[in-house]
Parts: sequence; C-alpha cells; structure tokens
Amino acid sequence: MINDLFLRACRREPVERTPVWIMRQAGRYLPEYRAIRAKVDFLTLCKTPDLAAEVSIQPVNIIGVDACIIFSDILVVPEAMGMKLFVDEGKGGPRFENPIRTRAEINKLAIPDPNRELNYIMDALRLTRKILNNRVPLIGFAGSPWTLATYMVEGKGSKNFRSMKELIYSNPKDAHALLDKLARTVAAYLSAKIEAGAQAVQIFDTWGGILPPDEFKEFSLRYIEQVLKLLNRNGAPTIVFCKDCGHSVEAIADTGCDVVGLDWSIDIAKARMMVGSYAALQGNLDPTMLYAPPERIREGVKKILEKFGRGSGHIFNLGHGILPDIPVEHAKAFVQAVKEESIQYHR
Amino acid sequence: MINDLFLRACRREPVERTPVWIMRQAGRYLPEYRAIRAKVDFLTLCKTPDLAAEVSIQPVNIIGVDACIIFSDILVVPEAMGMKLFVDEGKGGPRFENPIRTRAEINKLAIPDPNRELNYIMDALRLTRKILNNRVPLIGFAGSPWTLATYMVEGKGSKNFRSMKELIYSNPKDAHALLDKLARTVAAYLSAKIEAGAQAVQIFDTWGGILPPDEFKEFSLRYIEQVLKLLNRNGAPTIVFCKDCGHSVEAIADTGCDVVGLDWSIDIAKARMMVGSYAALQGNLDPTMLYAPPERIREGVKKILEKFGRGSGHIFNLGHGILPDIPVEHAKAFVQAVKEESIQYHR
Repeated sequence: MINDLFLRACRREPVERTPVWIMRQAGRYLPEYRAIRAKVDFLTLCKTPDLAAEVSIQPVNIIGVDACIIFSDILVVPEAMGMKLFVDEGKGGPRFENPIRTRAEINKLAIPDPNRELNYIMDALRLTRKILNNRVPLIGFAGSPWTLATYMVEGKGSKNFRSMKELIYSNPKDAHALLDKLARTVAAYLSAKIEAGAQAVQIFDTWGGILPPDEFKEFSLRYIEQVLKLLNRNGAPTIVFCKDCGHSVEAIADTGCDVVGLDWSIDIAKARMMVGSYAALQGNLDPTMLYAPPERIREGVKKILEKFGRGSGHIFNLGHGILPDIPVEHAKAFVQAVKEESIQYHR
Repeated sequence: MINDLFLRACRREPVERTPVWIMRQAGRYLPEYRAIRAKVDFLTLCKTPDLAAEVSIQPVNIIGVDACIIFSDILVVPEAMGMKLFVDEGKGGPRFENPIRTRAEINKLAIPDPNRELNYIMDALRLTRKILNNRVPLIGFAGSPWTLATYMVEGKGSKNFRSMKELIYSNPKDAHALLDKLARTVAAYLSAKIEAGAQAVQIFDTWGGILPPDEFKEFSLRYIEQVLKLLNRNGAPTIVFCKDCGHSVEAIADTGCDVVGLDWSIDIAKARMMVGSYAALQGNLDPTMLYAPPERIREGVKKILEKFGRGSGHIFNLGHGILPDIPVEHAKAFVQAVKEESIQYHR
C-alpha cells in the first residue's frame, strides 16, 4: 500500500496529514467523465466494468484524492431485487417505473445474490483494485435501507415524500417488512463488495433527514445497525453518512460504524466532542464553497481543520457530493489545501 | 379578549390547555380558500384587504385554531423595495423577474415606508382585527433578512442556492450590505404591523438551514437579532422560526425572541431542556403526519405533548406549513386532538 492515509484515519491511527476524498468525485464536473458519458448512458456506464473502473480512477489521477470510490448508483440494488429502473436523461437521476405501493409488491421483491445479479459491480471492483495497484484504497458503497425504500416507494426524489411518509405513519408494519428485506440485501451486497476488493464501505442515508429524530432511529438507523451487524467486514472500516441528521450524531456513532460522515450543517468540533473518542469523522465543507475562488476555499479548509484540531480520526470531504458545475481547478485547490494545511495538525 | 391562550403561552404564563395554530393555515387545503383564489390571482389576494382578511379568518372559523395569521407573502417586502415580483401560475410561488446580482443593484434598493408602499397589508390587519373582534389574537409576519435576500438573489427557491452561496463566500461585504438594508426594512415593516393591530409577530427563516452553523450565525441570525432590536414591540411577543437550524436552538433563543419555532427535525423535549427556561417553544409535528388517519394524528400529538411535558410555554403547531393536499378533516382532527389531549398537562 503506497497511500493508506485514508484507512489509517478511519481507524484513528496516526497519519502524517489528513486524507481527503470527495463524495461524487467520479462525476460530471470532470471533462474526462463527460467524455465517456457522451458515448454511453448512465446505466451502461454503471454496468460496464472497464468503463466504471476508468471513471472511478479518474479523480485519483486528476484531482489527487486519497481514496477511490467505485463508480455506481445506489439504485442498482432495488433493480436487482426486481424493480424496473430507467433514466430519463436530462430529468434528474434514475427512477423506478412502478413504485412500490402494496404489501404484495414488497413480498415479491427478491433478495438478490450479489455475485450473480450484481456481479458487474464485483467485476468493476476487482478490475479497479488491479489497476489502482494499491496506490490508494478502494471504497464500496450502498444506499441505506431507508433511503433505498424511499426511492422505491416514491419512484424518485420528492419534495414532501408523501407516499413514504404515509407508509410509515399509516402502515408501519409494511414499512418494516420492506426495510428488513433491504437491510439483509444491503448487508449481503456490501459483504460481496468487500470480498471483491472494497477496502472500506460507506452507507449513504440521503433521506434520513426527512424524518423526526424518533422516526429516524426507528425506520433508518435501526436498519443501518442491522446491516452493520450482518456485514462480513473482513477488516474493512465502515462509514455511515446520514444527511441532515445532526440531531443524532451520537446515535449514528453508536451503530458500531468506524466513521461518521458529517454534512455541513453540524460543527465538526462539536461532533468530535460528542463522538470523537469512539468514531472517526468524515467531512464537512459546504459543497457550494467550491464555487468560491481558491484562496477562499483554502480559508474554508483551514477553518474546518482548526475546528477538528490535532490528531487522527478525520477524513476530509465535502458535506455532500461535489456539484456538477464546480470548476475542476477548484476541486484540485480544495484537495491541495487539505494536503498542505493539515500537516501541522499531525506533527 | 375571549381566547388569549396563544399570547399567554408565548409569555409562558399559565394556560388551561395548549394553544394551537397551523403555519399556512390560510391556504389551498381549504375549499373556501380555493373558491376565492378561483376568482383572483395570488398577488391580488395579498393586496386586497377585504379578501386577505376573509381568507385569514377562514381557518379560525373552519378549523378552530387559537390564533389568526394575516394572509400575505414574504416577497411583497422586496417588491416594495423596488423588485419586480410575478407569479408564474402552476409553476410554484412568486418569483423575481430580475434577481439581484451586483452591488449597484443592492444600493438601488429602497427602504420602503410600510405605511405607504405596504399600506394594503396594514389595512388588511386593521380590518381583520375588527372582524375578529378579539375572538383570537392576530399574528403578523415577515421573512428573515437572510431568507428574503436568498429569494432576491436567486429569484426563486433553488436546489443548491449557487448565486447566494457565491455571494457570501466570494463577496461577503455585498451580502452584508444587502442584509443590513433588509434588517432595517423588516424591522420597520413589523413595527408598522404591530401598530396596525398585529398582537404577535413571527419571523420566517425558511432558508437558514442551507448554511453551516457559523455562517448561519453570521448571515442570518445576526440580522434577525438586528430586526428584534430595532422592533417597536409594544408588548407583542416575537416568534423566530428557522427551518433546519436545530444546530443553533440556543443561539436562536439568545436573539431575545419570546418564542422559538421548531421544525420536526428536533426533539421538543431536548429543545425545552436547552432553552425552555427563557423562551417558549412552537411546534413541531411532521406536516406529512396529517396524511395519516385521525387516530394516528392523535397519537402523534400525544407524543409531542408528552415530550414537552407539564406547564406553559408551548404553542402547538406543525414543524412547517400545512401541505396543500391535506384533507380538511385531518387538519380539524389535529387541532381537536391538541385541544383535548393537552388539558392534563396544565392541571
């Protein structure tokens, strides 16, 4: 392993500087990514291992990040469970043709064998590991059961999430049946990813924040915990990123994950005070700060480094995915600023 | 005053039961409101005092809420400052034709005399007070400087708020110039509303939650504080509602407001523990819970009442505005449940 800063920081072991990667780092802000997407559609890219490997590695070469995350989409998992996924180009991300609405539809969902129905991702992981040749660690990921369920019930992103909220408030038993099935699916999926070469895994709970704190614990966190319990970790650190869930940082750390991902709505000094003695933290620059000029980006980076303070246990990242219209030079300036400014906190 | 429960709860004085009103209670979920909107457009309704009074009072008569909030829109204030407002029917709420982009445009904005440019709202308040005849108190409101500025710079709601974020991160001086002008405008506007008959005022900070906590304090809360300092209260309680700002409940209470409005992402028991000894709390049922059947709504109400616990200092409300497709019977069931279930906490 040439650069294992990321893995050491996940385990809160000493590092020479703070490692950094960027959520959605393999994405549209990179001209090299857009060049490939001009030739194939989004789902084909997800399902073609050599192309997925290529775009996964692009930010390692171009931006200089300390970890590679495999290019994929969280919705390929419900697709493997039997739902029909399609991408309406230009109209946002992938969507489901027939959202889940009944218990019969929940019961019909399969728990896929990830090495069969999702083997193209395992191939992409194996290939990416081989090409990376240990330059940086490789991260695998999945959506949380709650976030996947929300997409499956709504069909797509939503403003008020009426269908999913009706399900949990009017018919919680069906919601739990769906979430339990998803937890078992996600655990098997992430275990297979680790077996195929992922050296860390991140669970994305994009929609945890639409719930009140009690319901977040009942319908989202409980199933993330189940995933982590069923997971065959084989030494791979686990990261849990719940967006807009600053109300439950301690509960998230209590799931047994190694790293708590923070969005930009929480003060990282406060988060470290609360859970820093038993979890590493990942985050949390406001992604829109990358619109600002490089010298301002550096100020933003310095502020967060200072808030976290001395010692290991911090993986620098944005508080959410990088936006598609961020200039590449700004992404580079961000990574460079972390690399340079963090050294003093690890002497 | 026949029913002053709301005002007493704002002041944390003893009440016989917890008062309740609903953000956006004068709105599209009411057939009686839709009947009027079928005849006049949204801005005409805002600007016609007898119609504004009529729709403001509808929920008092139909739903039985304990407070009346004057029907209006926060964006009539920037309009009075010189911006051109228009409503693209069917495409969301009001928008600005020419968003603010330069310092020259900021400098050109007027600080309106609310009794001239916004006198139609003062007329509506006077008329509503007269018709209400002290049945329930009348609330006036305004957008926070930050929220108004965000709409003025973006032109409308946004996903990532790129323009506003660029302004604060790249050009904070201009942002402060705009916010200072807005704070003085909002203070004069709310003072005039109180003079015209508003017995309490609420500041809506819809977009405070898009900021990291430090920037929230610098660009939003600081100017809410300025409004409150400049405000001629004349005894009227002040409510500050910042959406998605659970990270700063204590700082919000420290502005000197009487009531902190809570969205549904914070546990009201925790909020009371933090600030309950010096501020009342308003909220905070998840608005989508009103999609559930009345018996489930009652369970949700009971849970929040139990969380708040015994004693005064709680105004029941949703955690955000009522959604336009909520059945009227469910809104009634919500209000009725609060009225019945809360008595035991005030014995």
